[in-house]
Amino acid sequence: MAVKRLKIACAGLGRMGKRHALNYLDRTPRAQLVAVFTPDPVETEWARKELEPVCVTIYSDYDEMLQFPGLEAVVIVTVTAVHAEQSIKAINADRHVFSEKPLSTSVEVSQAVVDAAAAKPHLKVLCGFSRRFDKSSRDAFRHVDPIGPPSVFRSQTCDVLDPSGFSVPYAECLAAASLWTTPSTTLISRCAVEPGLRKHKDVDNDVGIVEFWNDKFACFFCSRMMAAGQHDITEILGPKGKLVVNGNPMSTLVEVHEPGGVRRELPANYYERFGYAFLTMANEFTAACLSGTPLPLKLAGAAKALSGGCKYGTEDILRQHGASDRIDQ
Amino acid sequence: MAVKRLKIACAGLGRMGKRHALNYLDRTPRAQLVAVFTPDPVETEWARKELEPVCVTIYSDYDEMLQFPGLEAVVIVTVTAVHAEQSIKAINADRHVFSEKPLSTSVEVSQAVVDAAAAKPHLKVLCGFSRRFDKSSRDAFRHVDPIGPPSVFRSQTCDVLDPSGFSVPYAECLAAASLWTTPSTTLISRCAVEPGLRKHKDVDNDVGIVEFWNDKFACFFCSRMMAAGQHDITEILGPKGKLVVNGNPMSTLVEVHEPGGVRRELPANYYERFGYAFLTMANEFTAACLSGTPLPLKLAGAAKALSGGCKYGTEDILRQHGASDRIDQ
Amino acid sequence: MAVKRLKIACAGLGRMGKRHALNYLDRTPRAQLVAVFTPDPVETEWARKELEPVCVTIYSDYDEMLQFPGLEAVVIVTVTAVHAEQSIKAINADRHVFSEKPLSTSVEVSQAVVDAAAAKPHLKVLCGFSRRFDKSSRDAFRHVDPIGPPSVFRSQTCDVLDPSGFSVPYAECLAAASLWTTPSTTLISRCAVEPGLRKHKDVDNDVGIVEFWNDKFACFFCSRMMAAGQHDITEILGPKGKLVVNGNPMSTLVEVHEPGGVRRELPANYYERFGYAFLTMANEFTAACLSGTPLPLKLAGAAKALSGGCKYGTEDILRQHGASDRIDQ
Amino acid sequence: MAVKRLKIACAGLGRMGKRHALNYLDRTPRAQLVAVFTPDPVETEWARKELEPVCVTIYSDYDEMLQFPGLEAVVIVTVTAVHAEQSIKAINADRHVFSEKPLSTSVEVSQAVVDAAAAKPHLKVLCGFSRRFDKSSRDAFRHVDPIGPPSVFRSQTCDVLDPSGFSVPYAECLAAASLWTTPSTTLISRCAVEPGLRKHKDVDNDVGIVEFWNDKFACFFCSRMMAAGQHDITEILGPKGKLVVNGNPMSTLVEVHEPGGVRRELPANYYERFGYAFLTMANEFTAACLSGTPLPLKLAGAAKALSGGCKYGTEDILRQHGASDRIDQ
Repeated sequence: MAVKRLKIACAGLGRMGKRHALNYLDRTPRAQLVAVFTPDPVETEWARKELEPVCVTIYSDYDEMLQFPGLEAVVIVTVTAVHAEQSIKAINADRHVFSEKPLSTSVEVSQAVVDAAAAKPHLKVLCGFSRRFDKSSRDAFRHVDPIGPPSVFRSQTCDVLDPSGFSVPYAECLAAASLWTTPSTTLISRCAVEPGLRKHKDVDNDVGIVEFWNDKFACFFCSRMMAAGQHDITEILGPKGKLVVNGNPMSTLVEVHEPGGVRRELPANYYERFGYAFLTMANEFTAACLSGTPLPLKLAGAAKALSGGCKYGTEDILRQHGASDRIDQ
Repeated sequence: MAVKRLKIACAGLGRMGKRHALNYLDRTPRAQLVAVFTPDPVETEWARKELEPVCVTIYSDYDEMLQFPGLEAVVIVTVTAVHAEQSIKAINADRHVFSEKPLSTSVEVSQAVVDAAAAKPHLKVLCGFSRRFDKSSRDAFRHVDPIGPPSVFRSQTCDVLDPSGFSVPYAECLAAASLWTTPSTTLISRCAVEPGLRKHKDVDNDVGIVEFWNDKFACFFCSRMMAAGQHDITEILGPKGKLVVNGNPMSTLVEVHEPGGVRRELPANYYERFGYAFLTMANEFTAACLSGTPLPLKLAGAAKALSGGCKYGTEDILRQHGASDRIDQ
Repeated sequence: MAVKRLKIACAGLGRMGKRHALNYLDRTPRAQLVAVFTPDPVETEWARKELEPVCVTIYSDYDEMLQFPGLEAVVIVTVTAVHAEQSIKAINADRHVFSEKPLSTSVEVSQAVVDAAAAKPHLKVLCGFSRRFDKSSRDAFRHVDPIGPPSVFRSQTCDVLDPSGFSVPYAECLAAASLWTTPSTTLISRCAVEPGLRKHKDVDNDVGIVEFWNDKFACFFCSRMMAAGQHDITEILGPKGKLVVNGNPMSTLVEVHEPGGVRRELPANYYERFGYAFLTMANEFTAACLSGTPLPLKLAGAAKALSGGCKYGTEDILRQHGASDRIDQ
Repeated sequence: MAVKRLKIACAGLGRMGKRHALNYLDRTPRAQLVAVFTPDPVETEWARKELEPVCVTIYSDYDEMLQFPGLEAVVIVTVTAVHAEQSIKAINADRHVFSEKPLSTSVEVSQAVVDAAAAKPHLKVLCGFSRRFDKSSRDAFRHVDPIGPPSVFRSQTCDVLDPSGFSVPYAECLAAASLWTTPSTTLISRCAVEPGLRKHKDVDNDVGIVEFWNDKFACFFCSRMMAAGQHDITEILGPKGKLVVNGNPMSTLVEVHEPGGVRRELPANYYERFGYAFLTMANEFTAACLSGTPLPLKLAGAAKALSGGCKYGTEDILRQHGASDRIDQ
């Protein structure tokens, strides 16, 4: 007679994997975390201590985990290289799938996931993009019509310098952004603080310009040398107005007046800024799986992002930055 | 083999009652809402539609609800006049209790609840004060030591003009604040917008000054005539700095640049500003009931607030505005 | 054939006196500083060095200074005790007069200046109130009509703790404010940081409430213990909106993002905040003397401020805080 | 025995010319505007009404104006095409020179002015760059050392859409900026709002990236389609911090709380934002001419800006955006 809850498993228990697992365990009331998969001994140890006592089964084999009795959905937070393979296996096993982005760094492989999902329309298959679930980014979309057709889009993703290597994926995000495009793209990358990054084909400051049809363009700036904290900004510029998301970053509503002036702290990192969006994502994915309602973003976009096709414009980018797929759906 | 969840019932399904009930139903993973009580036919109808399908039992008799099999905790969101009586009944029935504030408008009646709770130290009895669970208010407390001993405290609770009568309890909050005190209190009340409120012994603008020992004082401003939205501010002033909570109110991180300037929207009402604090409160109350750990604020404070005793100072007020009971515990 | 310039003298060369003298010397193109008066040897030495080389005559006798050939106007920045006497002498000598506030701490003496000025309507006699010449305060007045009839007025004058004694006059400002009134006034004064101030009948934190007819009131807060810098705020609350002047103080438009967060510096003191208003005052006074046009505020207000008469309301206070005397004129 | 004042003439009385003339007439106490030149009948009419009554002589021949008895300095605000020729003539006539930017659109012609000035080292020759005299931009320079060596520079110059053609020069500013450089420059221009601008080889949105040696770069954004008002931003990013000038634009310190939220107005145009900087420029130029002290920026920079030489870096740009020439001098 209990309320129906979604039986879900989490593959991967690295930094983000742990966060997803705990979100589904503790903060997604309609979901029930029943199983996890990790090939890593340290992660397994963590799971023994934190998850086993609350009745979560631990697997070191992904295929076995998929066979957990009654399993309905899988969250894939493993390394990028296996996102697609694991997603397709889960789809074939008739499980709903949430995969962290990107599906793959290959257009063809990404498309294979889209095709697999298309063959099972009763399944919900979602590739995560946290800003699409961020309250402020969504709120911005509500104001887009009043400012008129957007002609310039500017985005800044700026991390604190972090020696742990965690910030590498964010450097990738710009590369992804520039790959989106079309008539013309410019990408400038610099190792201003850490020349050593060059060895790893990485940089600490990137700026990219993406030109669209109809005299429109987007400008992206990515950095990993912020001293003050995480600071992501989105700007959408139209002839009747401009929207700014997070122009004035803050970790809380507290302002400290002290010798030196008025000070406001920033989120310490990406997850402190967007953690609640990840939670919203978990709850909305769960609700869609249980109720069969449409997901707020389409899987095809995750493949499009890599496809380099020439038919996309600022609408697509808006959608990537918090908007619902109101046009596609 | 399922995870242990707290079986909880909710008494009262008015505006705030519904919110509490839904918070425990949907957004407090370690709690399970099993029963509700309401004497009101309209509220009962709502519960039939929203709660019965998800296995919540509806009672029109509070005492019967207390006998729900396995019930562990009760949330009391009925009218103020019965908070104390229902709390004591629940305590006597060996249930954990969360009561909305105030326990009572009588010092003696409030103290009776405190005494009943003291007789059952294994029970968790909490009187809600949402700011104590607000992330920003809590963050302010972290900065109190650096600014030196606070000597001036200023608080503003400002609502939108609302013809539904919902704002009446907030006018009460200042009265409560001024009653707190001690050597001297000044209270000035005005019906600037709605002279008709006088009939109901109510006002729309209040300012109160509370004087403490040691040359310290607090200044409270309450209003219900804000045009822009909900705007509560807390200021704590010490010799080495000042803390401001919510000096720049906002509903999201979006800023709209449009003809006329730059605009930022405000929370539409008290619940939009503090809704997440209510949810934190539900989760922390649940955790304390399940784990036996101390609650973040003490029941005695809810009686103290009315007692007019002369031994309180700015520390007590800080505690009421988001701080942990770090001294008492 | 040169352009006509106003021949002006400055009485008093203390901290503010030097500022007024230099404003008229260097930054008021239509004025020509021709003479100064000071009884103080140190100030005289300063004048020898700074003013004599640019053709300013120095007097140690106020009456002699008044006889400077062709003198047209006098700026009085001496100690409060002689403001009125020196103003009246200057009026009788047929000179335009600018006196720093207050005219006197006595209602009768202040009125005597008003009467002397009334007897010589061709003269311009102005008692300084710097906020009346502040661009932001003036701009606020433009927004008053849209917010509806103001019912609550809040003002904060907060200085840095300054051991030089300079801040004493600001404690007086609240006293003056509360004296303005009428049906009822409450004044609470505290020595939170410097108990020693009590010996000098002075305080470091003041809060005053002034009640008006028609359910309106004003709340004033004065402090001299700001750690971050000068922070004066004015708030005007009406049923359709609220105006805030300087809610977010800043010395320039620079924001520093650094470890610890985003920081904005504050003006270091009252003069850094309102220095440009003093300059505007010098230029507008000069223009009025040369052209015969009305001054932007009336002398009578400077006496009213002390009179305790019962016919004033929020309109008067608005006027004191930056508005033109649009009703009186 | 009057104080020495600088006898100055103004060439050109268009929109900016009138502003310069009035600044020297009314708001630059140590200067005396003695003559103006304009070939335009409408401007002449204006000068007859506004300047002749205050003893300013009007010329329709530039060479004759240069012969005004006792003339010491000339302000050149004519069309760009004649800036250089008129500057050289004034230098040859032994007058100090202030020329609006640019000296010329030709490197060679600009260099000729620099050479003419170098031949007369007793003369002050200044090419105006208003941000160098802006209080906030100057204040930013004070914070540059603490943030470490700047590696990324971002600048935004955004105007309101203005059908009068006034905004055309601002589109040029980016072109100028991109010409500055060196190893590599990218420039993207768009007519998002006004396709018709293409006919005039003009655009309404520009973005340019300038790459420097040592992994540094600058990103410029220019627009003329702001709905909210003038909004120029400067950002300087170093490894220990970031400086933002004017991230939160405002015309005054007033915030309006009204239905819809909190609103802050913006400066209506470039001159409302930087008008005080123009005045500071007038006063500092005058002081330098009278006293022989160095000007705050060097003439050579105005030619460098066009030279495309490869030896410049972020230091040069910082200097263009408000810094003193602390390295050169």
